[in-house]
Amino acid sequence: PKNFMAKIVKVLNKIKNLAKDDPRRVIHSIKVGLALSLVSLFYYFRPLYDGFGDAAMWAVLTVVVVFEFSVGATLGKGINRGIATLLAGALGVGAHHLANLAGEKGEPILLGILVFILAATSTFTRFFPGVKARYDYGMVIFILTFSLVSVSGYRMEKILELAHQRLSTILIGGSTCVIISIFVCPVWAGEDLHKLVALNIEKLADFLEGFGGEYFGHEGNDGGDEGPAVVVTKDDKSSLQGYKSVLNSKASEESLANFARWEPCHGRFRFRHPWKQYLKIGVLTRQCAYQVEALNSCINSDTQTPPEFKKKIQEACTKMSFESGKALRELATGIRTMTHPNAAEIHLEVSKAAEDDLKTTLKTALLEDIDLLHVIPAATVASLLVEIIACTEKIAEAVNE
Amino acid sequence: PKNFMAKIVKVLNKIKNLAKDDPRRVIHSIKVGLALSLVSLFYYFRPLYDGFGDAAMWAVLTVVVVFEFSVGATLGKGINRGIATLLAGALGVGAHHLANLAGEKGEPILLGILVFILAATSTFTRFFPGVKARYDYGMVIFILTFSLVSVSGYRMEKILELAHQRLSTILIGGSTCVIISIFVCPVWAGEDLHKLVALNIEKLADFLEGFGGEYFGHEGNDGGDEGPAVVVTKDDKSSLQGYKSVLNSKASEESLANFARWEPCHGRFRFRHPWKQYLKIGVLTRQCAYQVEALNSCINSDTQTPPEFKKKIQEACTKMSFESGKALRELATGIRTMTHPNAAEIHLEVSKAAEDDLKTTLKTALLEDIDLLHVIPAATVASLLVEIIACTEKIAEAVNE
Repeated sequence: PKNFMAKIVKVLNKIKNLAKDDPRRVIHSIKVGLALSLVSLFYYFRPLYDGFGDAAMWAVLTVVVVFEFSVGATLGKGINRGIATLLAGALGVGAHHLANLAGEKGEPILLGILVFILAATSTFTRFFPGVKARYDYGMVIFILTFSLVSVSGYRMEKILELAHQRLSTILIGGSTCVIISIFVCPVWAGEDLHKLVALNIEKLADFLEGFGGEYFGHEGNDGGDEGPAVVVTKDDKSSLQGYKSVLNSKASEESLANFARWEPCHGRFRFRHPWKQYLKIGVLTRQCAYQVEALNSCINSDTQTPPEFKKKIQEACTKMSFESGKALRELATGIRTMTHPNAAEIHLEVSKAAEDDLKTTLKTALLEDIDLLHVIPAATVASLLVEIIACTEKIAEAVNE
Repeated sequence: PKNFMAKIVKVLNKIKNLAKDDPRRVIHSIKVGLALSLVSLFYYFRPLYDGFGDAAMWAVLTVVVVFEFSVGATLGKGINRGIATLLAGALGVGAHHLANLAGEKGEPILLGILVFILAATSTFTRFFPGVKARYDYGMVIFILTFSLVSVSGYRMEKILELAHQRLSTILIGGSTCVIISIFVCPVWAGEDLHKLVALNIEKLADFLEGFGGEYFGHEGNDGGDEGPAVVVTKDDKSSLQGYKSVLNSKASEESLANFARWEPCHGRFRFRHPWKQYLKIGVLTRQCAYQVEALNSCINSDTQTPPEFKKKIQEACTKMSFESGKALRELATGIRTMTHPNAAEIHLEVSKAAEDDLKTTLKTALLEDIDLLHVIPAATVASLLVEIIACTEKIAEAVNE
């Protein structure tokens, strides 16, 4: 029983954290519940057609399947579902008609062949990356509706009646979802994407701003007793590890961008906001993150660098990383506020000047001991970073246009 | 018309490439078509219950929605669907019964509240990462079935009849999918994962084996005329860029691992094959790939390294990267054939020896010119690679146990 209690507490904590991390999750759950009880009760009170049968079922099914977390995803699924049902329904009626002409014997054979051809080709279409990203759900509904209609075996009048009934229920279910998702605390995928891209850049900035202190600071202060210094490093490092999530952000960025393309104009975003620009920035940010990852393994490396050499390059390196971090932060702020990040350029200039300083230091320094193995990479990566920042800046400007 | 023809040719080419890249896509499409026409015709010939209505619809729906590319995904969805329908059906009947007791006035209110609570909590559960990964589809079906059954408004006998009918059709649809996906050219997610992990390691090996020649070779041979040398580099590089896909392999590896956990024993894989080990190897491979990415930007860097210095480290560096590449290739082969990669250790030893050589070279070399900025990183990264390889080896051994 104690073990059981501990488990319950653990689950409760998990729930609390999930809700705390993103309160919109709770709101979303309530929205789904609301939409579903509304649609259910609507059909409960108005048992249209032959009792509570097909009609209500389709409305409930539509709500359950179409209602997604963000407005873009919900709209995308709703539109996919509507259009696919219409198209497949029309085609299905046609196929049904065609099969009728083939006589009683040929009918099932022809129907089977038609269903087979359509299902196979549609399934294959789903492998196209472009279709997969935006119309996958539509293809599923297309196959489903076509097979249902063409094999239904009803007379034509019945089919038309069914089609009317089904379309209207799907419309009711779909519009309930769309209306609730747009007007009750909407979650815009576009806004999320916007924030995510800025946040990712900020995470890199966090690392770069802290890197100098991390790499030079601790060991420099208490050279003798390594033990505690290392412990402090381990503790502090957690604040620098935020960038790790940037490395694998591709999938979420792309799905958000796909959803965002369905969204109407909202807040500061137009209907055809250049979402692809965000993906470009995302790619560059990740490239930068890979360099940061390499930089990070320099911190963890256990090769000892002679302290006198470290001191020589400390100032320039710290400045380079700190200033490029600042520049990234300005860029992120620029994206957030959709303004031109003027300050970023200044920070970039400063970091470039520091880079030149470092180069002259390296050129003039007379080195008795050549075991630089773990000092220079930091400088290299910092200079690579400067390149990438320049790139990111270009893109940020493009977005702000 | 010419423009139109060009477009058609383009689309046809795309189709050809899609089919060529993975012929299983064509087979999968045919399998879906087959399953669908079978189920459709089965219900066409045997109009059970009241004509071709609900019953067949559920079977067709199940086939369309459950049939996925890999056996694991199909099984997972089928099992999710079956269990969720059963559970939600039972709960729905209970809710229906409870609401009946509340009297005619209280019934719809109570039903609405119950649907709301269940839908909201289930939707929230879907945010748990663990649930999302494996039971997402089950939760959707759970909400759907519960609302359908509890609000249905039928008498109890009718509900039980419906439940029986619906479960049997779902069973027929689901088992058709599972049988066809297992026995007709099966696509095992586990096998795909196995191959993907090995392939990713091989891609890194490709890069490392080619890196030495790329970095030192071309410029060394024709020092004078930079122009053509660079062009050759650009051409050759495409063969080295294969590793880029490794950087973003996380999502596909994880979904394959999730599917693989549903799969029964097949080929050389047991039912509870340690799929998590593959994910661990995947994480390490990506870490290695980040270092390779940093290495790659050293090739593209335009800072000029003094050739005399380059020559000094050429031998050791080339050996380090080539031998670590060889070691990775052996590891990949070890994973593929599920044997212990003995040769990998030898290659690792050789590359470690080269690393020591490099260190002594660096220590003894008298350097007049200290502009090493772009030589040492390669060495650093190579030594980091050796560390990571050692790590990967441990994991590979763990898998082979």
